[in-house]
Amino acid sequence: MRIALDAMGSDGAPTIDVQGGVQAARDTGHEVVLVGDQTRLAEILARENLQGATVSIEHASQVVEMGEHPAQAVRAKKDASIVVAMGLLRDGKVDAVVSAGNSGGVLAASLASAGRIGRIPGVHRPAISTILPTLQGHLFMLDIGANTDCKPEWLVQFAHMGAAYAEHVLGISQPRIALLSNGEEKGKGSTLVQETAALLESAPCGLNLVGNVEGKDLFRGLADVVVSDGFSGNIAIKTAEGTASMLLRVLRDEIKARPLAMAGALLAKPAFGAVRKRLDFREYGGGALLGVDGVVVIAHGRSDALAIRNAIRVAISACERNIVQSIRDRLQKVTALPDSSPA
Amino acid sequence: MRIALDAMGSDGAPTIDVQGGVQAARDTGHEVVLVGDQTRLAEILARENLQGATVSIEHASQVVEMGEHPAQAVRAKKDASIVVAMGLLRDGKVDAVVSAGNSGGVLAASLASAGRIGRIPGVHRPAISTILPTLQGHLFMLDIGANTDCKPEWLVQFAHMGAAYAEHVLGISQPRIALLSNGEEKGKGSTLVQETAALLESAPCGLNLVGNVEGKDLFRGLADVVVSDGFSGNIAIKTAEGTASMLLRVLRDEIKARPLAMAGALLAKPAFGAVRKRLDFREYGGGALLGVDGVVVIAHGRSDALAIRNAIRVAISACERNIVQSIRDRLQKVTALPDSSPA
Repeated sequence: MRIALDAMGSDGAPTIDVQGGVQAARDTGHEVVLVGDQTRLAEILARENLQGATVSIEHASQVVEMGEHPAQAVRAKKDASIVVAMGLLRDGKVDAVVSAGNSGGVLAASLASAGRIGRIPGVHRPAISTILPTLQGHLFMLDIGANTDCKPEWLVQFAHMGAAYAEHVLGISQPRIALLSNGEEKGKGSTLVQETAALLESAPCGLNLVGNVEGKDLFRGLADVVVSDGFSGNIAIKTAEGTASMLLRVLRDEIKARPLAMAGALLAKPAFGAVRKRLDFREYGGGALLGVDGVVVIAHGRSDALAIRNAIRVAISACERNIVQSIRDRLQKVTALPDSSPA
Repeated sequence: MRIALDAMGSDGAPTIDVQGGVQAARDTGHEVVLVGDQTRLAEILARENLQGATVSIEHASQVVEMGEHPAQAVRAKKDASIVVAMGLLRDGKVDAVVSAGNSGGVLAASLASAGRIGRIPGVHRPAISTILPTLQGHLFMLDIGANTDCKPEWLVQFAHMGAAYAEHVLGISQPRIALLSNGEEKGKGSTLVQETAALLESAPCGLNLVGNVEGKDLFRGLADVVVSDGFSGNIAIKTAEGTASMLLRVLRDEIKARPLAMAGALLAKPAFGAVRKRLDFREYGGGALLGVDGVVVIAHGRSDALAIRNAIRVAISACERNIVQSIRDRLQKVTALPDSSPA
């Protein structure tokens, strides 16, 4: 398998991305194609131990920066690393694309004319997904940012795409599907949530619906797949990130202010380490962009080499489990049965 | 001053509510009117030390339960504690209402015919607010649940009402106002956020706008007032609650799994206590329902006596600072200058 890595993507690019790419190539035995400035990438590669790692470079002279307007940037920069990477996928030269860059840019590149892989036929809108830790295990969530304003039928498709991913890539049989809402009770929620719930209930099409999930219950493991519009989903995951980082910061400050607590914290260090490992986004690598006609994985901008490596592993397993075909099959089945439930 | 407390509100009602009410009466020197089942309230009161506390009972035979549909319940239960409490406020018999009950029920009671205090003239929609801890201090946020689907002009009013509260009740001069969004960059956000931003920028009317704030930056103290629709705002605060509780639970589990870490945690106990105190919602008591023509404070359903006491303190300080008049004045000024900025 060959995975294209947008090597100019992360906040620490290209060094971090190259290091993660080399690690992934070595650990998985698959080839990683680093896409970006050839000279800089070659320089960084020269310092890495490449034994057992198949790594190549594909030149791209431009970069879509974090602050840029995604669609405009992708249109203007035809030689941007993410556009070139997407072109390799479209042309069948690689099996997947991984990027820790501007997530809007990744989405735009997948749909723009230059690198266009396009949508799976019948897909209204692609959605960005992520995996989050819960008290019981994991949670698959989408959309977390691709579509700020959504229609109910888009969310219905997100539910099906999420179910396909949970089943085929994560190996969860009959994944429990919930809608993110402001109350678990039926009838709660925005108009969008209520209309989506009504559509889903009238034609569940094999979905194992478990109702609404509130922000406070997100991490209690009540659902395997949580569906939301990209605006609320983004607010949920970023608020979770912000809360965790504030809490750990406050804890550190209060411990540091007390010598005895400092001593105690030293004894408790392995426990803190275990917490960090269980909750660390880097362990999950990245979230798949679902609905596009190819395997694309978006990693966190603040990824380190470990996170990049893990994002590449996510891409490889999505390829192995043939997620694109699974989504295609499921959506075809749903479209064939618009008003009835096979369940 | 006389504060009506819906004594049937919290999850631990009426005992918890009565205890909190008695504490507040003693600590503040103001009278607390307990509204609820007279017999039960009298029984609980008989076990309390009432020295230095002026507490009375107003009978109400019904309760709006947590799971009920707010508007329907309020219409059907004319003798519900929250409806009776609101009637006391409408009739000028008390200065404020505090409830830890169904927040939709509190909102509905304030607008329904039975206990109607109604909106401040010109207010599109009342909003539920809350105070949250940040790394730097506090954050005032609204709407967190009254209005799931909002219009831009409602959010503009939320911004003005939030500014009035921050200035007059919290004592923050020129409070920094931000919109909750999925990206801090201008041009990011849902259609609602973008249209609200455009309206605010075209007529800031004395607001100190600082742009958009993302979930991950909510607790970094970048804004004093964060404005959102009730759906996203609810998701943000509940996700924060869920994240904090998961993190502390995971930390406890990992510590308990290690004897040495257990010993360390004992030494660090005062630090943990300090963290809990800094981040505990109970310290903030409750959030004002803004836009209604009277002082109404909604406390968390999981309030204990301390939280109830603090919610009553919030109500007293909102009365003392005359928040209703401040909002009235500000909205009049804004309406008088629809297309120009006095700033």
